[in-house]
Amino acid sequence: MSVTRHYEREFVRTFFTSPTAVDGEDDSAKMLRSAGQLRGLQAPDVWVPDNEDATAPNMRDEGVQNIIEVVAEQGAEFPGEIHPRVVWHRESPATRYQGFQQMLEIADPDNGAVEHIDGFVIPEVGDIDDWKKADEFFTIIEHEHGLEEGSLSMSVIVESGEAELAMGDLREEMGKPSNNLERMFLLVDGEVDYTKDMRAMTPTGELPPWPELRHNTSRGASAAGLIAVDGPYDDIRDVEGYRERMKENRAKGMTGIWSLTPGQVVEANTAPLPPKTGSWLLEAGGREVELEEQDGKQVYDGDDLSLEEVSDGSYVLQAGGDRLELDKDELTEELLDRTAYIPSMNDIVDSMEEFEAAKEAGKGAIAMTQAATLVIDGVEVDISKDRMWDEATYQAAQTPITLFQDVYEHRPDQHEELAEMYGADIVERATAVGN
Amino acid sequence: MSVTRHYEREFVRTFFTSPTAVDGEDDSAKMLRSAGQLRGLQAPDVWVPDNEDATAPNMRDEGVQNIIEVVAEQGAEFPGEIHPRVVWHRESPATRYQGFQQMLEIADPDNGAVEHIDGFVIPEVGDIDDWKKADEFFTIIEHEHGLEEGSLSMSVIVESGEAELAMGDLREEMGKPSNNLERMFLLVDGEVDYTKDMRAMTPTGELPPWPELRHNTSRGASAAGLIAVDGPYDDIRDVEGYRERMKENRAKGMTGIWSLTPGQVVEANTAPLPPKTGSWLLEAGGREVELEEQDGKQVYDGDDLSLEEVSDGSYVLQAGGDRLELDKDELTEELLDRTAYIPSMNDIVDSMEEFEAAKEAGKGAIAMTQAATLVIDGVEVDISKDRMWDEATYQAAQTPITLFQDVYEHRPDQHEELAEMYGADIVERATAVGN
Amino acid sequence: MSVTRHYEREFVRTFFTSPTAVDGEDDSAKMLRSAGQLRGLQAPDVWVPDNEDATAPNMRDEGVQNIIEVVAEQGAEFPGEIHPRVVWHRESPATRYQGFQQMLEIADPDNGAVEHIDGFVIPEVGDIDDWKKADEFFTIIEHEHGLEEGSLSMSVIVESGEAELAMGDLREEMGKPSNNLERMFLLVDGEVDYTKDMRAMTPTGELPPWPELRHNTSRGASAAGLIAVDGPYDDIRDVEGYRERMKENRAKGMTGIWSLTPGQVVEANTAPLPPKTGSWLLEAGGREVELEEQDGKQVYDGDDLSLEEVSDGSYVLQAGGDRLELDKDELTEELLDRTAYIPSMNDIVDSMEEFEAAKEAGKGAIAMTQAATLVIDGVEVDISKDRMWDEATYQAAQTPITLFQDVYEHRPDQHEELAEMYGADIVERATAVGN
Repeated sequence: MSVTRHYEREFVRTFFTSPTAVDGEDDSAKMLRSAGQLRGLQAPDVWVPDNEDATAPNMRDEGVQNIIEVVAEQGAEFPGEIHPRVVWHRESPATRYQGFQQMLEIADPDNGAVEHIDGFVIPEVGDIDDWKKADEFFTIIEHEHGLEEGSLSMSVIVESGEAELAMGDLREEMGKPSNNLERMFLLVDGEVDYTKDMRAMTPTGELPPWPELRHNTSRGASAAGLIAVDGPYDDIRDVEGYRERMKENRAKGMTGIWSLTPGQVVEANTAPLPPKTGSWLLEAGGREVELEEQDGKQVYDGDDLSLEEVSDGSYVLQAGGDRLELDKDELTEELLDRTAYIPSMNDIVDSMEEFEAAKEAGKGAIAMTQAATLVIDGVEVDISKDRMWDEATYQAAQTPITLFQDVYEHRPDQHEELAEMYGADIVERATAVGN
Repeated sequence: MSVTRHYEREFVRTFFTSPTAVDGEDDSAKMLRSAGQLRGLQAPDVWVPDNEDATAPNMRDEGVQNIIEVVAEQGAEFPGEIHPRVVWHRESPATRYQGFQQMLEIADPDNGAVEHIDGFVIPEVGDIDDWKKADEFFTIIEHEHGLEEGSLSMSVIVESGEAELAMGDLREEMGKPSNNLERMFLLVDGEVDYTKDMRAMTPTGELPPWPELRHNTSRGASAAGLIAVDGPYDDIRDVEGYRERMKENRAKGMTGIWSLTPGQVVEANTAPLPPKTGSWLLEAGGREVELEEQDGKQVYDGDDLSLEEVSDGSYVLQAGGDRLELDKDELTEELLDRTAYIPSMNDIVDSMEEFEAAKEAGKGAIAMTQAATLVIDGVEVDISKDRMWDEATYQAAQTPITLFQDVYEHRPDQHEELAEMYGADIVERATAVGN
Repeated sequence: MSVTRHYEREFVRTFFTSPTAVDGEDDSAKMLRSAGQLRGLQAPDVWVPDNEDATAPNMRDEGVQNIIEVVAEQGAEFPGEIHPRVVWHRESPATRYQGFQQMLEIADPDNGAVEHIDGFVIPEVGDIDDWKKADEFFTIIEHEHGLEEGSLSMSVIVESGEAELAMGDLREEMGKPSNNLERMFLLVDGEVDYTKDMRAMTPTGELPPWPELRHNTSRGASAAGLIAVDGPYDDIRDVEGYRERMKENRAKGMTGIWSLTPGQVVEANTAPLPPKTGSWLLEAGGREVELEEQDGKQVYDGDDLSLEEVSDGSYVLQAGGDRLELDKDELTEELLDRTAYIPSMNDIVDSMEEFEAAKEAGKGAIAMTQAATLVIDGVEVDISKDRMWDEATYQAAQTPITLFQDVYEHRPDQHEELAEMYGADIVERATAVGN
């Protein structure tokens, strides 16, 4: 009856593609080989030997052989899942047939790779009937090679309007007896080709933000028990921009993102985990500024907000064009409205444990308090924020913890780095809470 | 042929929930009893005795009895509609069966409450087939208790991706002979559980804004002749934020909102009504600032815009980083671009009456003018804004008036407060115009 | 198999409506007659003699006759397509039957207009079954008048929630044997009536932005091989606002827009074409400011950013509330992050030619560089931006060029103005590249 996830891992943070065959190298599989040796935070949750766009068309036959060779050799030790991408196009039967042949070859047990292959990624899908064509090839391949039906998972790249619409039909279609769409795993946005398909243009050529596409992908994943992954972030230098994008995505329920380099993998493996230390945000100049902690106090040292105690208990707060004369209580109130707290991993575990104890004692809701001393232009103000926790808040707060636990369970190769990041004690409590 | 609304009231401003049974009180129905006595602007359009999340699981049997007792006693006098919320979950047959039993008991005519019950609210619905399961229970209950088929209306809380998708199917499904989905009334967003279901995360734990969900709810309501209601706004202290949220919602066609306290009910009953007095907005510092009226002039006293007459008929306007040298006409033009007028109830009624007279006289379009004297840094500038009104503008402007008339018709208990707010004369003209 | 566009023109920039009969004029067809004489950039891609909202109800019979007369006379010479709008309403059989009669009369070959009529525009459509009713009337008219089945194209105005949902079904419905929906051409948003239908309200009465509607229209067009067109922009004076709206629309893949005046037609015919000269954008004060070129350098002269060389190779950059102390490399990096380049038509053609040559030579990706000298407060900084071009970038960049080529092919009356705008040489290269 429920939305069952047909795969072990509940979250995928990272989707890392590698060219399968690079021309002009001594060893055309060099990039594959080095990717297959990544471990820990540098290793993705899902590794995608990419026999489509990342590999030149005339190298793709060699790419298939490279995938087989490298996965057969290194696959047993690789800490993430392995999902090669083959060619496909909703408008080309020839391309679809090539995709089928690539999968048939890679999945041949005689080649020794398939036991380490978790599934395949199908790009450029169209409407739901096109997804079924791919699914049918998976089924044929499984039968042909004596693999269990449904054992190869299927992920798609959403890069057309019709594929976006198909995500709304998926839940209903997945149950039908004439397909095996229960093998579906990832819904991955591909914004470069999507932009082309939608014939969208921006003055500078940068990609449009496509918020509705990302919402619909996340919703489609939620409704069908799948995992939503955002497309590549091209500007590899721009770490801040990549983080900002991931933050936006998580607010949409899209936890995963494409990574183009091991550096991006580290960022994307880390970003969805709660921070080691909490921090305070202050709204100033139309932005939320993270305050700096000095001697246990939260200091604002920008110019967009200024505060002065003009006489005893009487304050002037200047913010942009506004000048506010406030007494102590009004000032506290105003600053409360302007602040927010980002809880640390420790805070979240504390709150959850506290709520669990309260529930045990028969209470349905408790107030959690965060207090701080703000310092603006040398003036100190104490604030204290209450938040009611009930069952629903508890469960919503649990998402990052569930993610952490999922990571901890499936990625033992990251245990050491996680312990370094948080301390062994917090890691232990975080893996225990809520179970 | 048309989208027929299967209920008397065309708008619902307020959806107010009360716990049905609170442990540790002398009278566990105390909160229900006091909510049932609300009148006027403090009383919601829809009152929801909440036997789900607001009530502890072990108190819900008592909650059913409390609903029956309080509604039987107070229901006849309550000025809004009454729609208890029962338990339900798309993934739990046990919970669904409990929900059925709760409704069966509450709707039993022998218990004396059902004649004041307008319908039930079903939370945690899934795809459209799940909605049909709830609808079928309504039908069975109606037959079992000798009630007219379809007489109990059904509202749902949308708090999953599949329920969001179901809203796109509703119009088509409602006509089918094997269900009674014509009983549908409210589509209510439940963002806390929706956020959990979508596995979304924000750094501070605050809810994502979910603009697409709200659009889809409003569109689903429009397509199926229902009413869209936004979820709870948790920060009860933050009246400004609640108003801002409602303003955003109305721009999406979502007029109703959840209210958690009688104070929020007053805000939400009032917010969608046109203001008593008109006001001018000026764009300054990237925001729209409401000007202050002084002696019939509109005065800006912020620091984000400065204006100086440097010589006769020659002006310098400074806005953010830009310095504009303008003659009188250019200045007027620039300020016209930066201003907007919020019409009062009186303005809207005037314009509609004027347009009706013009139409009577055979004219299809007329120009409406709003004039004002702006004062910036002591410099006075006269501006005058024209807007063409044709049939389409007229009909669009009518929405707040239709809402007002709907409120006036169905909420006699608010007549006195409305007359105080606007004056009896304007109330009378507003109830008459456009009919 | 593919999404085939069932019409010659691939893009429609402009959708220009004219009243068909104006009361009180000597010649009620005066506005039609003058619109039919527009040429060059003043002439729209699609001209819509509007026998619905732009024409008073009691003038619509005369409007039908005027359409016939003017199109018979001027249609052969008109450079764009001609698609009259007739009356229709999803909730009124009487209005639908009137719409049928209007089309039947206009399309009668004896009246001499139909050979210049490309199709009809149907307003106020409802769900997909309502679209089929209109389509069936087209089919009957074609048979009745001996026209080829499917030869009259059908465009709709999306101004209801159910029509918005219908766009998601269109691709699937278009293939069915019992309709001729392959005749579909334009999906046009009608935000005024949509706002009414959604019962949305804004304080000032201005239209909500409806980003989700525009996305869904663009996606529906993409999935069904149609063209998306945005609704009217009422504030005719506000050219800047109209341009801003079109820029937003293009980022959504919606290239076309309604035009209410020949002036708006010129703007909307021009806006989607690449600029004659490239330009640099600098992020300052939360906005992107276009820099002014002076002696080949890019000069910023606003106040939101200030730069000083405090000692040799050591700089202070002040931006809003932030003060950054930077060495030369950090400064270059920071400015790189804050700048973007808008390529000219020439730049795009250059890059495409360069990539084509590289591909010919067996390279899959090349780096394109844009360099500039920025001047801020007299301090000069050289920056240089690289962008990797692969097949996908190439194809995405091609959209404006494909648009240009489409315009060039179908609008010979604009050749002269395009040559004036870009120079004959660039026009020639732009029409040749990528084929």
